[in-house]
Amino acid sequence: MRSTAPRRPLFLSLEGLDGSGKTTQIDRVVDFCEHHNAAGVVVTREPGGTEVGERIRHILLEHASLHAQTELLLVFAARIQHVKVVIAPALALGKTVVCDRYLDATYAYQGYGRGLDISLIDAMTRLLDIPLPDLTIYFDVPVPVALARRAGRAADRIEAEGEEFFERVREGYWRRAQDEPGRFVVIPATGSLSEVGEAVDAALARRW
Amino acid sequence: MRSTAPRRPLFLSLEGLDGSGKTTQIDRVVDFCEHHNAAGVVVTREPGGTEVGERIRHILLEHASLHAQTELLLVFAARIQHVKVVIAPALALGKTVVCDRYLDATYAYQGYGRGLDISLIDAMTRLLDIPLPDLTIYFDVPVPVALARRAGRAADRIEAEGEEFFERVREGYWRRAQDEPGRFVVIPATGSLSEVGEAVDAALARRW
Repeated sequence: MRSTAPRRPLFLSLEGLDGSGKTTQIDRVVDFCEHHNAAGVVVTREPGGTEVGERIRHILLEHASLHAQTELLLVFAARIQHVKVVIAPALALGKTVVCDRYLDATYAYQGYGRGLDISLIDAMTRLLDIPLPDLTIYFDVPVPVALARRAGRAADRIEAEGEEFFERVREGYWRRAQDEPGRFVVIPATGSLSEVGEAVDAALARRW
Repeated sequence: MRSTAPRRPLFLSLEGLDGSGKTTQIDRVVDFCEHHNAAGVVVTREPGGTEVGERIRHILLEHASLHAQTELLLVFAARIQHVKVVIAPALALGKTVVCDRYLDATYAYQGYGRGLDISLIDAMTRLLDIPLPDLTIYFDVPVPVALARRAGRAADRIEAEGEEFFERVREGYWRRAQDEPGRFVVIPATGSLSEVGEAVDAALARRW
């Protein structure tokens, strides 16, 4: 028997710069998903999400002399472990997966930010058969706003980059959103917490 | 002015199972190379060879629940850092690089040993433009001999595998040697230290 009902989005990723308010909105996304999926919701993050992934995350965020291609491979190593051990098993059980940063962050940070060849990221994604999210919410803020919001927080190796780096990252996110309008929802995240939250609810309700 | 002299092998890799006597012969290889290259010799190893690489090595050798593709990506992450930071700069200075395990170990252990798709390793190698050694010396011993030699040594996650795994690894090394006879020298390593050492000297002299 073949169902013709549109499939609910089960795999969601949240993207944005540090200081975009992305992480603050996760609870709201999870609340919405829990009300719409009795099978449950798994909340996870990248890089990380598994024990090995968190060890790789430490290397990524702390190690000073990492070559850009090494950074890319470490990101994909953490990702494949995450997909195989966390994401795919949860989706197989019909759970909703909410991932705080995922594949698009690799394009934005390592591709546009670090200037790595985009076709290398495309090729790795195809080669490793990395699953795409059903829905990606990108929280967009101008770089000075993001930087001001996270002023005072300790900066890791990547967050310690300068404003120009983050302008490239933001451009990367915009390009990804333009290339895949069916998957991306761009939410302007300069408003108040509740304004952004309502936009998140509206976006989720529209896609569900 | 174009030189027609054959290029000396500057990039050497040594391959073989743990217990093949490979590591014991490194000093002999280095002695030979130092006598033939005034620019010097760099001795290194994989996985490892850099600070990041050694951290990755720890994850590889200690972490129980590593997916085979994660293992492969970590190996390539350590390798690209090693190539960019150690191997390529040394070769650019005309030094000889002697590497204790390299690309062929990935085919043998992750490909044949773990059963990962060989074409995935081929594709990663091409994609990342991984340089091939000029000469690879493979120390071949039957698996029971290797296992007996390293009895009593503490076994890491990979060395704790069973005899069948190492039979597949050995087969992998043989296939690599058959596929690239111009680069490989296979040295039967069941003889005494000095017998094997003489075979190493002879192989090096022949290729130099």
